[in-house]
Amino acid sequence: MKRLYCLLPVLLLAGGAVLAQRQPSINSPEVHPDHSITFRYFSRNAQQVELRGEFLQAPVSMSKDTSGLWSVTVPPVAPDIYPYSFVVDNVELADPNNTYVFANERFKRSIVDVPGDQPLVHALQNVPHGKVQYRYYTSKTLGTTRTLLVYTPPGFQVSGKTKYPVLYLIHGGSDTEETWTKVGHANLIADNLIAKGLAKPMIIVMPYGNVRPSPMPDFTKDVINDIIPFVESNYPVLTDSKNRAVAGFSVGGGQTLNIGLTNTDKFAYICSYAPYTATEEFQKNFTNWSPDAAKVNKQLKLFTISVGTADFLYEPVKKNIAFFEEKKIRVKPYIVSGGHTWMNCKLFLSTTLQEIFE
Amino acid sequence: MKRLYCLLPVLLLAGGAVLAQRQPSINSPEVHPDHSITFRYFSRNAQQVELRGEFLQAPVSMSKDTSGLWSVTVPPVAPDIYPYSFVVDNVELADPNNTYVFANERFKRSIVDVPGDQPLVHALQNVPHGKVQYRYYTSKTLGTTRTLLVYTPPGFQVSGKTKYPVLYLIHGGSDTEETWTKVGHANLIADNLIAKGLAKPMIIVMPYGNVRPSPMPDFTKDVINDIIPFVESNYPVLTDSKNRAVAGFSVGGGQTLNIGLTNTDKFAYICSYAPYTATEEFQKNFTNWSPDAAKVNKQLKLFTISVGTADFLYEPVKKNIAFFEEKKIRVKPYIVSGGHTWMNCKLFLSTTLQEIFE
Repeated sequence: MKRLYCLLPVLLLAGGAVLAQRQPSINSPEVHPDHSITFRYFSRNAQQVELRGEFLQAPVSMSKDTSGLWSVTVPPVAPDIYPYSFVVDNVELADPNNTYVFANERFKRSIVDVPGDQPLVHALQNVPHGKVQYRYYTSKTLGTTRTLLVYTPPGFQVSGKTKYPVLYLIHGGSDTEETWTKVGHANLIADNLIAKGLAKPMIIVMPYGNVRPSPMPDFTKDVINDIIPFVESNYPVLTDSKNRAVAGFSVGGGQTLNIGLTNTDKFAYICSYAPYTATEEFQKNFTNWSPDAAKVNKQLKLFTISVGTADFLYEPVKKNIAFFEEKKIRVKPYIVSGGHTWMNCKLFLSTTLQEIFE
Repeated sequence: MKRLYCLLPVLLLAGGAVLAQRQPSINSPEVHPDHSITFRYFSRNAQQVELRGEFLQAPVSMSKDTSGLWSVTVPPVAPDIYPYSFVVDNVELADPNNTYVFANERFKRSIVDVPGDQPLVHALQNVPHGKVQYRYYTSKTLGTTRTLLVYTPPGFQVSGKTKYPVLYLIHGGSDTEETWTKVGHANLIADNLIAKGLAKPMIIVMPYGNVRPSPMPDFTKDVINDIIPFVESNYPVLTDSKNRAVAGFSVGGGQTLNIGLTNTDKFAYICSYAPYTATEEFQKNFTNWSPDAAKVNKQLKLFTISVGTADFLYEPVKKNIAFFEEKKIRVKPYIVSGGHTWMNCKLFLSTTLQEIFE
C-alpha cells in the first residue's frame, strides 16, 4: 500500500498549491525486506532532525547528506504497525512524505506498516473484503449530528435475510472514530478472521466517543439511546444481548466498562482494553457498586480486561480486575507484554473477535 | 464539528502514548462569529512561528505569551474551507490541535471551516445524508488491490428497484481518494443539492488516481477495465453513457479529459477542473487528435472546462479550451475568480452536480 514517488513535474501539483520549494523525490518510510526501515526528511536549513517511534527505546538522530536529505536506518523491527514522528529542531511533526497519518485530535504522527514474512492478521490479504461506511446520526442526547463508522462483513446485504450480531468498538481518549480502522485495521482483522472461519460475520460500529467538555457522562446515554437505535433501524441486526458486544481502548476501555456493566441486560460481551477508569462517571457508577453478581455472571457470556505489563495503566488495571473479582464478577484477565499501544490494541481485538458471538 | 478541549487528565491519554510535555488546553483554530479566526500553537522553545493559509496574501507572524502559547487572529475571511499550516522555526507542519488534516501525499496541512451566516452548500445541514463507503477492488490493469470511496445517496438500497447514474470523480496530483470528501465535502454537497431537488440522486465514485512511477498512462485503462466493472457489478447503476459522468481536478482534470474524450461512447458528461495536461499520456492522445467533431458533439451532453483567473494553470487551460474549440468540439468554459484551490473545486463540483444527468 506504500506509494512510491519519482521526480516528475506532476508532483508539483499538490492539491491546491504549488509547493514552495522544489525537493528531491523522497521515499519515506522505506521498509526493507529484513524489516529494517529507512526514514527520510528533506531540509536544507534544519540543524537537527530526530526520529521518534514506538519501535524505539529512545529517539535516534538522523544525519544530513550534502543535498539536505536527512535519513536514518533502524535495525529490523518486529512486523507490526507503528506510530512515529520527526523532531526537527525541537518541533515534532508527521513525516510529510508519508500519506498515512495517525487519526488523532492531539498529535500528528505517521504510521509505518512493517509486513510479516507471512501476512499478519491485520494485513490486506487476498480475501473477500467488507465495507467501511461513514455515516451521520443525530444524537438527541448530545444535541448534535455526529459521525460513526460501520463495518459490514463480506456478503452483507441490507435487505438480505441474514441478521448480524454487532460489536460497538470505541477508540482511545484523543483518538477519533477513524482510529480503529486507520491505525487498528479493525476492518482488515475482521475480513481475515471471517475468511478463516475464526470470527463470525458481524457488524462493527465505531462511534466518535469523545464527549467534551465533561469527560464522558453522556456517552453511555448516547450509545444506548441514539447509536444503538440508529444501527438497529438502519441495519439487519440481531437485537438480543447475546448478539451485542462492546469493546474499547484506554478512555474507551473505561467507557466500555461503564456502558457494558450498567447495561448487562443489553450486552453479553464486554471487552475492555487497558481501561482508564479515573473518570468522574466511572467513580460515580462504581464506587459504591453492589451488583447482583450471580445475575450479572449469568447475563455475561464474556467479560475480559486486557492490558500489557509495560502499560502505564498496568497497576490501575490490575486494581480494576481485583475490584471486579472482589465483587464476585467473573472477569477474564488477558495480560500480555507491551505498553499502552495500538500494537496491543490489534492483538486485543483479534482475540476478542474470535471469542464473541460463538 | 470543531471539537473543543478542556484541561482534563483524560487529554493525557493520547492514543497509544502519554504526551511528553503537559501543555495547556489549546483551541485552534477558533472561528469567531464575525469570521475572524484565532490560531494557536504551543511551544516554549520556538523562536518564530508563522501562519500560512490560503485565506492570506502572505504569511503572518504569530506572537508568544508568557506561557509559551503562540497565537494570531486574522481579520474576517469569506466563509469557506481553507488549508493552512504553521511554520515553526522554518519547519512547516499541520496544526497539532486540529483534527482535520488535508488528505494529501506530499504535505501535511490542516483545514479550517468558516461557516456562512446561512449554511453553505458544502456544510453539514439538517437534510437526509448519504453514505460514504470505503471499498477495495482488484485492479487487473495495475496488478494491485486498490481503494476507492463510493457515495450512495439518501434512500439508496443495493437491492432496491432504483438504478442510479454514476459520477466518477478524480482528485488532484498529490491528493488521495479521500480528498474529495475530506476537503471537498463532495458527499455533503451532494446531500444538500439532492435535498433541494437541484441534483439527481446519484452515485459518486472517488478512486485513487495516482499511478506511479509513470504519470498516468494506465489510469484510463484502470477506470474503464477495472473500476467501472467493479461499480456496475456491485451497485444498481444505469450503464448507458447518458448516465455516466467523469470529473476531476488538476492532474485529475487532465485524466478526466483523457478518460472522457477517448471514451465518448461511455461518458456523456465530461467536467474538467483546472486540468493539468502537460503529461505524456495527454500529449500522446491529443497532439495529433482528429476527432469526428459532429459525432463527439452528438455523444456529449456536456463538456465543461473550469478554471480560476488566478490559477497558475489559467493560461494553459485557456489554450486547452482554444484547442478543443479549434477541433470544433463544443466545450463550455466556466471561468471564475480564484486560484488552483479546493475552494474553487467545491464551486466547480456544486455546478457540475446541477448540470449532469438532467
